[in-house]
Amino acid sequence: MRAEIISVGTELLLGEIVDTNAAFLSQELAALGIELYHRTTVGDNEQRLRQALVEALSRVDLVITSGGLGPTADDLTKEVVAAVLDLPLVLHRPSLQWIEEYFARMGRKMTASNRKQALIPEGGVALPNPNGTAPGVFVRKGEQIVVCLPGPPGELMPMFRSYVRPELQKESRGVIRSRVLRLCGVGESELVERIGDFLAGQTNPTLAPLASEGEVRLRITARAQTDAEAEALNGELEAKLRARLGLLIYGTDEDTLESVVVKLLKRRGETLAVAESCTGGLLADRITDVPGASTVFDRGVVTYSNRAKMELLQVPADVIEAKGAVSPEVARFMAEGVRRVAGTDWGIGITGIAGPGGGSREKPVGLVYFALAGPGVSLVREEHWSGDRRKIKRRTTQAVLDLLRRTLLTDQECPARRRLAFSLPPVFLAGGFFIWEKKL
Amino acid sequence: MRAEIISVGTELLLGEIVDTNAAFLSQELAALGIELYHRTTVGDNEQRLRQALVEALSRVDLVITSGGLGPTADDLTKEVVAAVLDLPLVLHRPSLQWIEEYFARMGRKMTASNRKQALIPEGGVALPNPNGTAPGVFVRKGEQIVVCLPGPPGELMPMFRSYVRPELQKESRGVIRSRVLRLCGVGESELVERIGDFLAGQTNPTLAPLASEGEVRLRITARAQTDAEAEALNGELEAKLRARLGLLIYGTDEDTLESVVVKLLKRRGETLAVAESCTGGLLADRITDVPGASTVFDRGVVTYSNRAKMELLQVPADVIEAKGAVSPEVARFMAEGVRRVAGTDWGIGITGIAGPGGGSREKPVGLVYFALAGPGVSLVREEHWSGDRRKIKRRTTQAVLDLLRRTLLTDQECPARRRLAFSLPPVFLAGGFFIWEKKL
Repeated sequence: MRAEIISVGTELLLGEIVDTNAAFLSQELAALGIELYHRTTVGDNEQRLRQALVEALSRVDLVITSGGLGPTADDLTKEVVAAVLDLPLVLHRPSLQWIEEYFARMGRKMTASNRKQALIPEGGVALPNPNGTAPGVFVRKGEQIVVCLPGPPGELMPMFRSYVRPELQKESRGVIRSRVLRLCGVGESELVERIGDFLAGQTNPTLAPLASEGEVRLRITARAQTDAEAEALNGELEAKLRARLGLLIYGTDEDTLESVVVKLLKRRGETLAVAESCTGGLLADRITDVPGASTVFDRGVVTYSNRAKMELLQVPADVIEAKGAVSPEVARFMAEGVRRVAGTDWGIGITGIAGPGGGSREKPVGLVYFALAGPGVSLVREEHWSGDRRKIKRRTTQAVLDLLRRTLLTDQECPARRRLAFSLPPVFLAGGFFIWEKKL
Repeated sequence: MRAEIISVGTELLLGEIVDTNAAFLSQELAALGIELYHRTTVGDNEQRLRQALVEALSRVDLVITSGGLGPTADDLTKEVVAAVLDLPLVLHRPSLQWIEEYFARMGRKMTASNRKQALIPEGGVALPNPNGTAPGVFVRKGEQIVVCLPGPPGELMPMFRSYVRPELQKESRGVIRSRVLRLCGVGESELVERIGDFLAGQTNPTLAPLASEGEVRLRITARAQTDAEAEALNGELEAKLRARLGLLIYGTDEDTLESVVVKLLKRRGETLAVAESCTGGLLADRITDVPGASTVFDRGVVTYSNRAKMELLQVPADVIEAKGAVSPEVARFMAEGVRRVAGTDWGIGITGIAGPGGGSREKPVGLVYFALAGPGVSLVREEHWSGDRRKIKRRTTQAVLDLLRRTLLTDQECPARRRLAFSLPPVFLAGGFFIWEKKL
């Protein structure tokens, strides 16, 4: 089955609202195994809506519209659908009664224009709207289906779930199931080279890479007759990808780096404290976005001033003086300081230049040092980021969380390797896990 | 001038991401006075992208695409645009150099596939992308213009603002100038009631309210023959709105609550330290997003554990014991503690229950106390938010920043009023500036 979505509303074309309905409906159709190749947005304009509808019906079996079911003269989705399908509009009495009761309950006066909301194309099914006045419409003409849903997401989503999804499930043959692998520490193009053979050869499941800020996602999508078959196909490809990519995969589906780190710490019964300078609290913010983070996260300090670094983290004044606040030495003292002061298992220290001011030739904007201190572990890493202040903050926290994740995993899976790698006092890591020493 | 937007990306049609680019571009086009009647979304599919492009070019003068500029074989927007416009793709050396440097700076290996990102349709202008590798394209063919922008909003938006908007401004007849007033502490419907007379009567400038998380924007848009005329029209309406709305307006255009607060503190030569529990660092993160925040922001502490509250902020153990960590008393001790310890002029303390766990009947999820301590000032405010963890964090920081802003402004403009209002030791503020006392 093939579908198109038509979003109706001048407010969409003016950019006054973001079309979250289209994303929701797209997800739902994908999960039903219904193919979606086009989405169109038009304003509250009869001619353009008609044209979009005719065009969509020339290509697909199912058209879903959102919006244009309100009481005003602008709202004309049902009128246009009825005209295009050549069906008269008829009054749906239960809907009229619902609308009357709705206004009575709200203590508001029902206007004549609301009566129009109870009209539906003849032969169609009125879809109840417990969250508003406008009923939806599900109407068939020959082999084709048109579904009209109200614009407000709080009305559209429950209506789709309650009435449209069950109906469409009956129509669709087979199922489509997706899962997403999340990777950190590799760029999209590098990843594409590493798994080029998979990307080239895959048809079922399909495999698609997707880059976003500081990470890459791999979506695996299988078609099959049953849920179990689709999941088995996905599982098989996932296993092959895991064998190839190993630690680069940090999680699946709704995982975030922070949720994975919190989970690892919980599992180990360990705690964390963080000391941030250039990231300004973003790392603590991300960690505390994870429900239940309080069991592993003791505290964060944002030591913007040098005095704060000395007072809260016991960073020695002479080190700041000699090396500068943005230095590997200070990052290390911050990580070890916050760990010692908080009495946690792990400590993180971050210092850098987020810009746009504050850079110099030796220490340009984008230079960041971050350090990880833990049981038998003391690491410092240097990075040079590009981008604006927000991006530098974001990428730094991404890299820090990934370093902690890898350290926790490496430690767990191979303590000997960890001891070997990390027993060298202050080491530097750069570009993956290449290690070199530098005398502090 | 008429435009269409084509959003390209299979991830859009699968509903994996919401198309915020389309809303952004729609807003921008509206502000430029360019008419937008259609938006289309297609996947990473050559045939359907070509069809959408041909159709759009049959109707309008300007087509803007987003997405499909990445390095993989899937990414084919420029290839299709070049084919439809019948222009060869040529290598743009400065872009290639930029991409090479980008990878060098990141310490990552550039692959052959990235080279393709430096190709642009002959005769087109490559639009620099400081936030990524893919340059954009601005290309004319006859009277028509095609603009290709990268998919990530963090790349698309600055590229549009820096390069596309100025170019399109030259095209449109007359000028359209917009300014945005930003308001905090009032809901959209309440605002609409308060300025209903303005909203009903306005045609030039037009006036449009726009709600987003924890604030409302008012866009004023004038058409005129010259910049000066348009700005004068906007200025006149702005003055009337300011007379009506007063302190509710916190800023204009690109201002944020945090940038306004940092500016006010800078002007007064005062400093700030913050102590957060339920907001987990988000307040510090927002403040440190403002370039130059380091001159006023001394430190932040994220005291998730009770021990951290006692150690870092000297919150008395017996107060935590007797009143609970989420209490007006603890919020007050946090604000005063961080102010005293840091030696800053102002201190903020936040404690609450961000959920989803941790709530009780007396202290439900969404209950937040925040306190402001400063010269002669000690305020505590109680709020009950709804929504998820992220929303509660966000709304709390919004309310805290607004409280600090209003206090700084009130103090500046009318010190006597401030002393009157704030000299009552521990006071509670709720719902605007209604004040009552509560014995702690």
